[in-house]
Amino acid sequence: MNRWPIPDPMARALDAARTAADQGEVPIGAVVMRGDEVIAVAANRTRQPPDPTGHAEIIALRAAAEKLGSERLTGCDLHVTLEPCAMCAGAISHARIARLYYAAPDPKGGAVEHGARVFEQAQCLHAPEVYSGMGEDEASEMLRAFFRERR
Amino acid sequence: MNRWPIPDPMARALDAARTAADQGEVPIGAVVMRGDEVIAVAANRTRQPPDPTGHAEIIALRAAAEKLGSERLTGCDLHVTLEPCAMCAGAISHARIARLYYAAPDPKGGAVEHGARVFEQAQCLHAPEVYSGMGEDEASEMLRAFFRERR
Repeated sequence: MNRWPIPDPMARALDAARTAADQGEVPIGAVVMRGDEVIAVAANRTRQPPDPTGHAEIIALRAAAEKLGSERLTGCDLHVTLEPCAMCAGAISHARIARLYYAAPDPKGGAVEHGARVFEQAQCLHAPEVYSGMGEDEASEMLRAFFRERR
Repeated sequence: MNRWPIPDPMARALDAARTAADQGEVPIGAVVMRGDEVIAVAANRTRQPPDPTGHAEIIALRAAAEKLGSERLTGCDLHVTLEPCAMCAGAISHARIARLYYAAPDPKGGAVEHGARVFEQAQCLHAPEVYSGMGEDEASEMLRAFFRERR
């Protein structure tokens, strides 16, 4: 039996996650796409330089806004290897991302299908369509291996 | 009758908010303090350069982390003129801010005492002590005037 191949944007996000792990950063990657065009690729980077907001999603959204010359990324999609936290879900809403794809759910820190459920709040001015699961095994195993090595 | 004076850090945050309005940015300001030491001062800046994450809190936290050389701002306090949104509340938690002071509540977009209530979630690994109200009239009036002019 063959597994359905991981779509190219999520494969790129997983590649970015791998580069984060190589640098001692938590292996999470994110990609902003506009149709078939890659707009920005980023990996978590909270340690060097020290930045409590340096999640892959935040870095990718900032780079995409700079590249496109607009704080609103209307029509863009975000692919990320882990369910976004409250900070990142809020940023995704501010950026008007059309579709959010994430690989692995995160019961401990996620704020999409867990906890703060940012997009489900009445106050949320823009909620993306949300899809999850594609690439979940790869994303989860990378995180498990990273934290296993550091215990 | 004299009003109790606004504490210096919040007065600085209000000053920063004023500078944002002068540049066509939403008038919100934030200050990171460590004891009596001013670590970072920032105003909203989402338009120029375009950055969907450019809220005053995010810019102040990033600057403070860079200045102190640590992604964790343990022992630091954040003073901001408006109740933080989900994005900023998440960042405040990641940064391990000890005390959060905000001037005006934000029923439409706040995520501390409204909506996502980020710090009240079981998943929230670090919640600051929260104080609000000091400087509320000044902060609210600045925002009302800003949006009134633009309608």
